[in-house]
Amino acid sequence: MEHHLTRSDIQDMDKRFRAQFINSIPGFKSVSLVGTADSAGSHNLAIFNSVIHLGSNPPLLGFITRPTTVPRHTYQNIQEVGHYTINHLHRDLYRAAHQTAARYEEGVSEFEAVGLTAELKAGFPAPFVGESRIKLGLKYVEEHAIANGTILMVGEIQEIWMPTGLIREDGYVDIEQAGSLGVTGIDSYHETRRLARLSYAKPDRAPEEINPSPLQS
Amino acid sequence: MEHHLTRSDIQDMDKRFRAQFINSIPGFKSVSLVGTADSAGSHNLAIFNSVIHLGSNPPLLGFITRPTTVPRHTYQNIQEVGHYTINHLHRDLYRAAHQTAARYEEGVSEFEAVGLTAELKAGFPAPFVGESRIKLGLKYVEEHAIANGTILMVGEIQEIWMPTGLIREDGYVDIEQAGSLGVTGIDSYHETRRLARLSYAKPDRAPEEINPSPLQS
Repeated sequence: MEHHLTRSDIQDMDKRFRAQFINSIPGFKSVSLVGTADSAGSHNLAIFNSVIHLGSNPPLLGFITRPTTVPRHTYQNIQEVGHYTINHLHRDLYRAAHQTAARYEEGVSEFEAVGLTAELKAGFPAPFVGESRIKLGLKYVEEHAIANGTILMVGEIQEIWMPTGLIREDGYVDIEQAGSLGVTGIDSYHETRRLARLSYAKPDRAPEEINPSPLQS
Repeated sequence: MEHHLTRSDIQDMDKRFRAQFINSIPGFKSVSLVGTADSAGSHNLAIFNSVIHLGSNPPLLGFITRPTTVPRHTYQNIQEVGHYTINHLHRDLYRAAHQTAARYEEGVSEFEAVGLTAELKAGFPAPFVGESRIKLGLKYVEEHAIANGTILMVGEIQEIWMPTGLIREDGYVDIEQAGSLGVTGIDSYHETRRLARLSYAKPDRAPEEINPSPLQS
């Protein structure tokens, strides 16, 4: 049986119900911790499920911040300092990561509140998450104001830290092997199980499974 | 052992290697088929791994299109008609979905070329994918030109078709139960396995697992 909902069915939903519902509908999402510092060096850590790839050359990623109607330290700190980190989650990290969304009192670092390590690496001006396995350091590039008041933040990757042995010979990084998680809706965390990698699509033949061997890295 | 890459290491990569590498690094991604029609009624179908949630009220989703330096029918058709569909993948559908990325000759519908059904529903002006289980119909809202020439397309959900029994009592939609897939990199398709849903984060207590019962839908 198929269920059909229209725009007005969505409009008639209770506010919290609709937030859960519409957050679930786009499909699987990335989930990461974004680490920032203000100009005085205080650290902030926040969970986001909207990190996307924008381009490889230059290496650009985006993420969506919510409206600035309440204090949003992540946004403010990126404005002040110009750098931030994106840190993948794994199964030993997602509960602490989820807890960073609590509204702690002003001046409380989420790193300390949830028991994660603010790791400063190679002079990068924003803190990485010590417990994360794949850690990216980015430089702010630009932002775009979207119709509903959210903001697309665009940044360029400057630094990557990750375990050895994940990079395949064609450049693919096996983030499933690293245990990286995905999220559905607002609050559901998932591990993954690869079905296959498929070869570059060409009009005259069906895609084949590709199984590249590991690169020495 | 940790592996460290800098901006210049990324710059020095071979172009295809870098595309695989940087596409893998953001984390898990959604994967969907976007269906469009031109003003003459010809259908187009293309795979995207950048669909994101932008807001629930109004219900806005975004996705990224590549530069318009080569013909991009999805973008052109949305400009012409103003509507498009987003269709989830599942394990019986991802090989055909991947194949839509092949460069077919002008005038060839990817629906026919890869053997998927263009489903017209309730007068909606863009085709849904008959074999998909979760199907969204959207109206174009706006677009944003990003520094690297990609474009963020913003649309508002007008119609949703999905199997019954997926909506939980709090509004969460169990897309894992529907078999929806995620993607890593450019070409790796994954099923998922839920670790837990976690309760709303509050400063004074750790999050708990939530297991809401199904809603009659």
